[in-house]
Amino acid sequence: MKVITTIKDMQTEINRHKVPSKSIGFVPTMGFLHEGHLTLLNRARQENDIVVLSIFVNPLQFGPTEDYSTYPRDFERDRALAECEKIDYLFYPSVEEMYPHPTSIKVLVQDRADVLCGKSRPGHFDGVATVITKFFNILMPTRAYFGKKDAQQVAVIEGLIKDLNFPIELIPVDIVREEDGLAKSSRNVYLSSEDRKQAIVLNKSLIVAKRAIADGERNPSKLISLISEIVTAESNGTIDYIELFSYPQLKPMGNLEGTIIIALAVKFTKVRLIDNIIIEIH
Amino acid sequence: MKVITTIKDMQTEINRHKVPSKSIGFVPTMGFLHEGHLTLLNRARQENDIVVLSIFVNPLQFGPTEDYSTYPRDFERDRALAECEKIDYLFYPSVEEMYPHPTSIKVLVQDRADVLCGKSRPGHFDGVATVITKFFNILMPTRAYFGKKDAQQVAVIEGLIKDLNFPIELIPVDIVREEDGLAKSSRNVYLSSEDRKQAIVLNKSLIVAKRAIADGERNPSKLISLISEIVTAESNGTIDYIELFSYPQLKPMGNLEGTIIIALAVKFTKVRLIDNIIIEIH
Repeated sequence: MKVITTIKDMQTEINRHKVPSKSIGFVPTMGFLHEGHLTLLNRARQENDIVVLSIFVNPLQFGPTEDYSTYPRDFERDRALAECEKIDYLFYPSVEEMYPHPTSIKVLVQDRADVLCGKSRPGHFDGVATVITKFFNILMPTRAYFGKKDAQQVAVIEGLIKDLNFPIELIPVDIVREEDGLAKSSRNVYLSSEDRKQAIVLNKSLIVAKRAIADGERNPSKLISLISEIVTAESNGTIDYIELFSYPQLKPMGNLEGTIIIALAVKFTKVRLIDNIIIEIH
Repeated sequence: MKVITTIKDMQTEINRHKVPSKSIGFVPTMGFLHEGHLTLLNRARQENDIVVLSIFVNPLQFGPTEDYSTYPRDFERDRALAECEKIDYLFYPSVEEMYPHPTSIKVLVQDRADVLCGKSRPGHFDGVATVITKFFNILMPTRAYFGKKDAQQVAVIEGLIKDLNFPIELIPVDIVREEDGLAKSSRNVYLSSEDRKQAIVLNKSLIVAKRAIADGERNPSKLISLISEIVTAESNGTIDYIELFSYPQLKPMGNLEGTIIIALAVKFTKVRLIDNIIIEIH
């Protein structure tokens, strides 16, 4: 595994593999790798000749009051984990390397960005789309791997690839969970032990909603109330949102049919967690 | 020369040339080709294995009151001219092919877009940057050729390539002029014979300003007044703007030094013309 820190060196390596053409799998992350990321890397390793992992905590996707400076970072640990996954390149650019000056160009997400996490994080998805566009242009991957825990991000990247005609296949990968059902997240390290116990309520409430749908419930408001009651009763967390949309369009639904997403965000003492479930309704 | 109208067919052709890797020269146009375009094609032909010309009148870069519907179009004439230049592909997609639904993603130009043509054409350069990003992703060219007549466009594309890390070389090509100095433009066909005679005033006034600089003039306001007086005295055109900036940064200057641009736009009866001069001051 080669660790590369400059765009120029990364492009030189990529060009080396372009002739003869090899498939390139790309896994973009903000580091502090957990099993969710490793699942992405593993899948990329199986499906491509070359695997590139990027680790970059992208300032452009954090709001001024958000956790950019405290986002967990541990490069040496990440490097060791990446080494185990037998990836080819770890691309680890600095902020100065990615943004040598304030960017004159921004990729604006005009749809799917004003709901869910986008509502409480204005500009977040513009920052994501901008940095992912830069990575796509630097790495020219064949396939890009994203975790479904960030289901809205997957929907936005799908729009980005389609509407800007990137010749890249998007591979959404299932959520990886702890044994008790909590979705793996780099931010979980900031849960107090009491919050950690209560945090299972996100997954648990989604499962109850899924069961209600299986039993015939088709009213979005009733499903949202059901989840809200469980989260309130079984945790001290503050609900940021609980929403139900068509997926991947992220449009409100009257009566449930087709592919839907139920997603929620809950704020605990030091950290805000998200989770979601995607359900096919026939 | 192959004429291709779908993105999918275009990508298939491009992929065929990527292994083994050949250089691809790209000349984006809105058609109604004139000698300026032919100069771009000729240069691209000399420098690349494969040359792609695109003809697409991009609705996204026209404002609601602008000349999108009346922009001159003559595909058969363009096809014949392109054939003479021995290009490999003429990419000629429909609006529905490029924008099958309202785009969920827009490329936003945050710098260099609020002066010159950008001031009177809000959103114009976002539309240009968005369509060019799409073309870059579809064609993956080695080099892209743009005429310096649209000097602000060249500056914006330079920012686009740099800030979004496109692995593409920008080749700006000198303005091609009629014998009397009028810059070649597809829109020149809409000049009445009286306006056509007066239209040389754009180039003439820029030459006078250049001579004044050579004679020691360094005051931007005085140069702008000089041009303004000539345009007013020698034509019935209405001045849209006359501006002087550093180039390619497009920032206002106190005292002139380095590379500068003087640009102007003048409205005639049925058409608005632009012209510019880029000068090195030592």
